[in-house]
Amino acid sequence: MLKSFQLADVFIHDNFFSARIETARKIAIPYMWNALNDQIPGVPPSGCIHNFQLVTGEKEGEYIGFPWQDSDMWKWVEGAAYSLASHPDSDLEAQVDFAINLAKRAQQEDGYLDTFYIVKKLKRFTNLRDHHELYIAGHLMEAACAWYAATGKKNLLEVACRLADCLDRHFGPKEDQCHGYPGHQEVEIGLARLYQVTGEKRYLNLAKYFLDVRGHQPYYYDQESKNRGENPPPHSHRPLELPYCYHQAHLPVRDQKEAIGHSVRQCYMLAAMAEVGALSGDDSLIEAADRVFHNIIEKQMYITGGVGSTHIGESFSFNYDLPADRCYTETCASIALIMTAIRLNRIHPHGKYGDVIEKALFNGILSGVSLDGTKYFYMNPLEVWQDRVTHRNDLHIDGERQGWFGCACCPPNVLRTLTGLSTYLGGHDEKSLYIDQYISSDLCAFMKSGKFSLTIDSQFPWQGEVSITVKDAPNDFLHLYMRLPGWARNYTLTVNGEMEPAAVENGYLLLSGKFEKGDAIHLTFPMPIEKMQATLFSPDYAGKFAVTRGPLVYCLEEKDNGAQLWALSLNDQLLTPVWDEQLLGGIMKIEGMGIRELPVLSLYSPVSPEAREVPLTFIPYYSWGNRGKGDMTVWIRR
Amino acid sequence: MLKSFQLADVFIHDNFFSARIETARKIAIPYMWNALNDQIPGVPPSGCIHNFQLVTGEKEGEYIGFPWQDSDMWKWVEGAAYSLASHPDSDLEAQVDFAINLAKRAQQEDGYLDTFYIVKKLKRFTNLRDHHELYIAGHLMEAACAWYAATGKKNLLEVACRLADCLDRHFGPKEDQCHGYPGHQEVEIGLARLYQVTGEKRYLNLAKYFLDVRGHQPYYYDQESKNRGENPPPHSHRPLELPYCYHQAHLPVRDQKEAIGHSVRQCYMLAAMAEVGALSGDDSLIEAADRVFHNIIEKQMYITGGVGSTHIGESFSFNYDLPADRCYTETCASIALIMTAIRLNRIHPHGKYGDVIEKALFNGILSGVSLDGTKYFYMNPLEVWQDRVTHRNDLHIDGERQGWFGCACCPPNVLRTLTGLSTYLGGHDEKSLYIDQYISSDLCAFMKSGKFSLTIDSQFPWQGEVSITVKDAPNDFLHLYMRLPGWARNYTLTVNGEMEPAAVENGYLLLSGKFEKGDAIHLTFPMPIEKMQATLFSPDYAGKFAVTRGPLVYCLEEKDNGAQLWALSLNDQLLTPVWDEQLLGGIMKIEGMGIRELPVLSLYSPVSPEAREVPLTFIPYYSWGNRGKGDMTVWIRR
Repeated sequence: MLKSFQLADVFIHDNFFSARIETARKIAIPYMWNALNDQIPGVPPSGCIHNFQLVTGEKEGEYIGFPWQDSDMWKWVEGAAYSLASHPDSDLEAQVDFAINLAKRAQQEDGYLDTFYIVKKLKRFTNLRDHHELYIAGHLMEAACAWYAATGKKNLLEVACRLADCLDRHFGPKEDQCHGYPGHQEVEIGLARLYQVTGEKRYLNLAKYFLDVRGHQPYYYDQESKNRGENPPPHSHRPLELPYCYHQAHLPVRDQKEAIGHSVRQCYMLAAMAEVGALSGDDSLIEAADRVFHNIIEKQMYITGGVGSTHIGESFSFNYDLPADRCYTETCASIALIMTAIRLNRIHPHGKYGDVIEKALFNGILSGVSLDGTKYFYMNPLEVWQDRVTHRNDLHIDGERQGWFGCACCPPNVLRTLTGLSTYLGGHDEKSLYIDQYISSDLCAFMKSGKFSLTIDSQFPWQGEVSITVKDAPNDFLHLYMRLPGWARNYTLTVNGEMEPAAVENGYLLLSGKFEKGDAIHLTFPMPIEKMQATLFSPDYAGKFAVTRGPLVYCLEEKDNGAQLWALSLNDQLLTPVWDEQLLGGIMKIEGMGIRELPVLSLYSPVSPEAREVPLTFIPYYSWGNRGKGDMTVWIRR
Repeated sequence: MLKSFQLADVFIHDNFFSARIETARKIAIPYMWNALNDQIPGVPPSGCIHNFQLVTGEKEGEYIGFPWQDSDMWKWVEGAAYSLASHPDSDLEAQVDFAINLAKRAQQEDGYLDTFYIVKKLKRFTNLRDHHELYIAGHLMEAACAWYAATGKKNLLEVACRLADCLDRHFGPKEDQCHGYPGHQEVEIGLARLYQVTGEKRYLNLAKYFLDVRGHQPYYYDQESKNRGENPPPHSHRPLELPYCYHQAHLPVRDQKEAIGHSVRQCYMLAAMAEVGALSGDDSLIEAADRVFHNIIEKQMYITGGVGSTHIGESFSFNYDLPADRCYTETCASIALIMTAIRLNRIHPHGKYGDVIEKALFNGILSGVSLDGTKYFYMNPLEVWQDRVTHRNDLHIDGERQGWFGCACCPPNVLRTLTGLSTYLGGHDEKSLYIDQYISSDLCAFMKSGKFSLTIDSQFPWQGEVSITVKDAPNDFLHLYMRLPGWARNYTLTVNGEMEPAAVENGYLLLSGKFEKGDAIHLTFPMPIEKMQATLFSPDYAGKFAVTRGPLVYCLEEKDNGAQLWALSLNDQLLTPVWDEQLLGGIMKIEGMGIRELPVLSLYSPVSPEAREVPLTFIPYYSWGNRGKGDMTVWIRR
């Protein structure tokens, strides 16, 4: 299995992402800290810090928010930790330590920690299906590992281990243990990370137990709800009905073949299956995760890397069901998808995983946050008709980004993804180094024979030029794998100015040999504007196309193209990329001429395709909705 | 105000409709009687007769069904009555009398009658908003008037009058009376009919009271729910939220400008406003009804005459929001729409009203019933992808017609519309006779100067040929108005073989003069196949068209055109009407060549419009879904 680059071994200096990471660091981290402290007027209160203070007795009052509120703090801590690794900041570090100390004081004697359960004096672990004790625990463990990696501080790791020990005593295969598993997967990821940091095998075993026991009959959730005195609902295999498919608990995880149910839970589970499978040497877990992952990317993924076709259960629905205007495509779900992709890639590297990561990062994830870093989409639709968003309760779409949410899972999830971006750059083993994302950075990997350091200078996503300079290389025969993007129809590769006919292996360009300090590799991936169609198995996009260029999906926004975007169409007209420094933080917009049908007043009339040529301006999908409310569409008629 | 033709004065012998009326008479009436008696296996029990028998003590058990169950029986009685007017049938008459006598025995001493309230021993008139005592009363009154007109029997009329008297004592403006109004409008129509039959002005006044008092603040429903000890929800003007807009009770009825809320309630209310306005000489009611009616047909009506764009509240949503695959378009709502149209037409005749009636009758209403008369659509979508219907709970669409429904409002509503079709043919006053629908029939009208009898021979909907022969005419200067269909781009009119340059007045062709026995009028309305577009204010149909011919809207069905109907498109190809005696009971199908894009397996790929020419077969929309389950679409890509 590949290793990720260590936090300390990567320094990102990317034209595109550095600005976003800076915004995350300077704006979003303090903004979210204020949100966690209920100090942002006009948005739903988080209650996070407040709830911990209720437990410690420093405050009096009622619990605020959903049962999973604690997790928002842990995702924020994880995001802040990644940021501190490259940008020390004593004020921020003090804030995180404040939060950790608060949690430490709130932690129960036996290690249990969940403010919802403690404040409300509920009996712990009695509703794994609907509540989130294990989900929160997973995020706490992830935060602890990140905090330790970033600062070397063990304070949160101790909290995490005490909590993990508490779980390990309570859950497991022994007769006197609880045979349940989380309603919202995540603790498996946290435990696997904690195992990797601490070497404590019990944590890995418990993660594996949660996966192994899941979905077997008789169903644990039935027993559990009987124990609560509830009448358990009949078992259902329908994807949009609670509770089995919704939780991916309808079948043992190894028997699951297609993505189903709540999309974040589904993808967190796949990530956990891959990781735990690899760490425990259980290929059946990896195979099952890979199978469902491929079902997603081949049949259930939006062109933006968004997943989740319906708000009912925030769920996957069924193959090829990809409506553009009433999708769910939660920001968190795309993040969970790339968490799966990077883990599968570490196990058996292939360019297709990096393709999905790139697609989701540049489109469906980045669209989740405003350019100024303080407004968020929970759902990322591919088509917005504001009139419909306003009037129809059944869309469950926001027409514009919001300052915060009652269920604020997405904002800190974007944060930890951006500040932890180095996780996604690539990886290495003893002899091979993989570059998955062309993000300008200095990075080094400790190979068997020594330190291998590179500088990547990339013009992505605006141009397909990448320079890789060797800064340091061991005296050894090594392999350098460079992802050949799925969208690239061809490429050129030069080494020290000479054309190099590199091998292509598993979606990577491969250079093998001895590398030397100063070696200059140059890659060019032409980025023509492409008109992409969807398969006709999906009815929603028949006769339409989406404009893409390189990794970016484009859209038409009302601001640039006027109202009634659906009146526009485009045939074989030439489209031109135009750099606009002033627009939306600097973008490569795409310009061309299209056809606008002229409006007819009567509701129905004989076809009279009166139309005129009009200029069209496409902008990157991630950047829409940053200039006020308006309509938007990714798909346009041919 | 025009008078309708009397039941006894119309005999329909139409190529198209007579077969459907025969099916209604021979199949649907006995089928529904069995349904009302819970004798159809495999469909939800109606409980109708059962519930009455619980009240009379002839049966023991629990109330079955929704609070409005009684109304199904009354709509069936109304439908049976119309049928008996032209086709005496002693067995059927005995069944109706059985039902009437049962109801008579069930009626309370003071005239009250609602089996739900009586069986459950609830306090009457305490939840006008959600329950249906007044709605049921209205249908009982309509049935009573129909039964009296068809048979001369007063038995049901007596029940109706006793009930109306009971309501008249309870509701009204006096201080000790209830100032409420129905949650589901209908009683106003029933009371207005009862007034017309009995001449009892109190009934008209009460109908008008219900309209006058509706929607004023403070809201009656608030007071009512407070009286029930409930916390009334805050008042809402959002169209899709209960309870005010849903019931069209958000504003006084005269102040309402656009259709909103539950579509059947909305249209029943408009019909009542028109009728009560005309009978009481209150033009403000008529104007308000006409204004909302025009909002519907100009901005909120499907091309099939369907209305109701969302299942949430079975409601209108907002202007130009007309999604094809998740519409509600309830059969009852189209019926309610033509009930409004015919009333407005009687007040100020105009061809546009007959256009709407024709459109809804031939398309959105007729699609509600299978060709064999025993299966029903509740919702009439314009596009069905069976995979989505199966998997997505949020569509609320049936993929095929059902044998019955728990809420079985639509089947008997279609029945009374078909057997009572003569209501919609036209009307007359002292000097003018109006022919609104070209349905072959013998009809006569008693003008001021005597009997005016005509025979209409129509080839509608398959050909635009209509012959009208005068059988009897008074010696008087009369006006004969013949609707010029909105879809007719031109016409020819001959009188006794001579071309006649008739005047066109308010959407009618007008012949004025003395008519003589044997006068032969011949009308030809060419029926070219038309490709219809929708206004671009509606995003759903951009780049698409619907095929129509004369009054019929056509569709593509999977059965004829293969799977993936959305892969098909059509440009300026020639389409040909082809009569097929064997298909679907005999239809004019439409054939032509189209383009089918070839399927590409990858979810997303560069546009490669590989396509081949394929034959296309369109069938009338009303006839779809009669050959097994499959996909269907009305709108096709250009």
